[in-house]
Amino acid sequence: MGKGRVEAFTDGVVAIIITIMVLELKVPHGEDFSALLPLWPVFSSYVLSFIFVGIYWNNLHNMFHAVQRVDGRVLWANLHLLFWLSLMPVSTAFMGENHFAPAPVAIYGIDLTLCAAAYWVLATQLHRLHAEDTAFAKALGDDRKGKFSLLLCVVGVLLSFVSPWLGLACYVAVAAIWLVPDRRFENQLE
Amino acid sequence: MGKGRVEAFTDGVVAIIITIMVLELKVPHGEDFSALLPLWPVFSSYVLSFIFVGIYWNNLHNMFHAVQRVDGRVLWANLHLLFWLSLMPVSTAFMGENHFAPAPVAIYGIDLTLCAAAYWVLATQLHRLHAEDTAFAKALGDDRKGKFSLLLCVVGVLLSFVSPWLGLACYVAVAAIWLVPDRRFENQLE
Amino acid sequence: MGKGRVEAFTDGVVAIIITIMVLELKVPHGEDFSALLPLWPVFSSYVLSFIFVGIYWNNLHNMFHAVQRVDGRVLWANLHLLFWLSLMPVSTAFMGENHFAPAPVAIYGIDLTLCAAAYWVLATQLHRLHAEDTAFAKALGDDRKGKFSLLLCVVGVLLSFVSPWLGLACYVAVAAIWLVPDRRFENQLE
Amino acid sequence: MGKGRVEAFTDGVVAIIITIMVLELKVPHGEDFSALLPLWPVFSSYVLSFIFVGIYWNNLHNMFHAVQRVDGRVLWANLHLLFWLSLMPVSTAFMGENHFAPAPVAIYGIDLTLCAAAYWVLATQLHRLHAEDTAFAKALGDDRKGKFSLLLCVVGVLLSFVSPWLGLACYVAVAAIWLVPDRRFENQLE
Repeated sequence: MGKGRVEAFTDGVVAIIITIMVLELKVPHGEDFSALLPLWPVFSSYVLSFIFVGIYWNNLHNMFHAVQRVDGRVLWANLHLLFWLSLMPVSTAFMGENHFAPAPVAIYGIDLTLCAAAYWVLATQLHRLHAEDTAFAKALGDDRKGKFSLLLCVVGVLLSFVSPWLGLACYVAVAAIWLVPDRRFENQLE
Repeated sequence: MGKGRVEAFTDGVVAIIITIMVLELKVPHGEDFSALLPLWPVFSSYVLSFIFVGIYWNNLHNMFHAVQRVDGRVLWANLHLLFWLSLMPVSTAFMGENHFAPAPVAIYGIDLTLCAAAYWVLATQLHRLHAEDTAFAKALGDDRKGKFSLLLCVVGVLLSFVSPWLGLACYVAVAAIWLVPDRRFENQLE
Repeated sequence: MGKGRVEAFTDGVVAIIITIMVLELKVPHGEDFSALLPLWPVFSSYVLSFIFVGIYWNNLHNMFHAVQRVDGRVLWANLHLLFWLSLMPVSTAFMGENHFAPAPVAIYGIDLTLCAAAYWVLATQLHRLHAEDTAFAKALGDDRKGKFSLLLCVVGVLLSFVSPWLGLACYVAVAAIWLVPDRRFENQLE
Repeated sequence: MGKGRVEAFTDGVVAIIITIMVLELKVPHGEDFSALLPLWPVFSSYVLSFIFVGIYWNNLHNMFHAVQRVDGRVLWANLHLLFWLSLMPVSTAFMGENHFAPAPVAIYGIDLTLCAAAYWVLATQLHRLHAEDTAFAKALGDDRKGKFSLLLCVVGVLLSFVSPWLGLACYVAVAAIWLVPDRRFENQLE
């Protein structure tokens, strides 16, 4: 089964998710610059989520680039990841509209955690189809980075109840470690 | 006429349908976990519909993979299927917002039935273009699974008036028999 | 300049237009079948517009299939067509929500007319790049069907002021003559 | 790393941005032509933004056509551009709904400026990967047009506080100089 259409469908869904998030940025009322001020929590949530969805697109891009085969279980593991990503617009708006209150920050982190877990499931399903000496398996390795960021998301969720800002700091840290481009797949392919 | 752009357009529309459904998941009011509780009927309807649209994408993916030719009538049979799929966000929200009342559950099932019927029409139109000894025709066979799930949708609609939960059970059963990956097309292509 | 990305972009925009139209179909209030009754004008407007956008997709599909070259002016002629198509969700909802009152039916027809005119401009720009003996030029011919349907749209707009149902009858007639698959491009390519 | 999927993803996001902008064009209340009159500021903002997003699509289309290599930094420079483009629907609606008041016109211009700056960053990142004698580097040249339009956007923002119409005149001028097709990349490729 070809990977081309899975890539195309995934790109399509991710492109739509990253774009419809902006629909939760309601047009401000008022015609002064001060009308923009109350938007800052929703806007900064949007920035954070835009970066996260961008990271997922980048990682999926790199991972599928190294992939040689997909099967039915991979398709569903991929749809499962897209499901949790599709909730990003709602969890982002929930966090932004409630000005980073503890429960919404925790919910946002739970969504991030489930995305990370679904990504791990997808990687595992792809690993099943690729022998240890393939570029894919070598590039993935033991995926310490993926496991560490999953852990950091869970810590962020728990810390949200101590202080939502600590939770957010964890999420930002996860984003930061992925923004540094992941060269594993690139290196293997060279 | 090439099948490539029909696949691309179909993937695009299905990707948009599966993603804009989330726009009906309104951001909850309140900043506690309890604010999420009233969302459960809309959320679980979303999960069910996400799975159904995912199944259609999977099946269309497999079917078009085996297809060699398309013509104008296939294009319209495909658009006809996309039409009923495009109503999924509305019928899903109607069912969820009314907490699985009988009529909305029946309406949802009618939409599912029309999708299944439209899929059958599309398969028939493609069958017309492919001789009995092609991979497509062999893989489709007499399509018992398609006919059975169409019947199960109709039964679900009728049972909704006895109890909406019986209707929902039928729809979940339809989803379950398709979640088991359909290996007909994969087997033929090997 | 390659036509591939123009096709892909056009397919993307048309896929989004045809799908976001459904967002104007507001989820009905109430949990009975009677809650669906007030939806009929919006729903039937949606059906008509879905068919029209489907026709444009089909026609663009066939036309670009025969095309060999595009240039900057073609890109803008194409964007110009997409602009008027992008107004279909608004003009459709305006017509449906006002229960086919004369002015909204005329506005809807004006949008259809501008789409048809923009399609004609696009065909003319493509004609400029293709000599008379190319498959494209032969398939397009003198485009009587395009000119006739443009005329029929204008007549529909004018008749809307006599009776909106006469206007609608013209629009339905335009859709009907295009639903019969346009075999010009297919024949030339065989 | 292949440029194909970056192009496809970019096309997808730009196609969605250009199309969801129309969702800010609310369906007018009333069934007379006079109901359309209050729409003119939102409608003309929509027209201007449609042209700008169309220009970006065109320019990205031409630029990526000449590109031979992309890397992780290019992906993020591209996402950064898509971020500011994704705010176009909101800044457009903010300007239109406030009938071209000074602050919203300035905000709109700031978004345009940031898009132009992000485009310049993307071009710089691509330049880094392409030697001076490649078609890409020759076509880009010293990019006077890009720098001039960036300057014109900044001037427009400042003039908005004198008179919003002067600001708008600058933005329209920027659009006008890009509507004339940019033949640099086309010429180099011939």
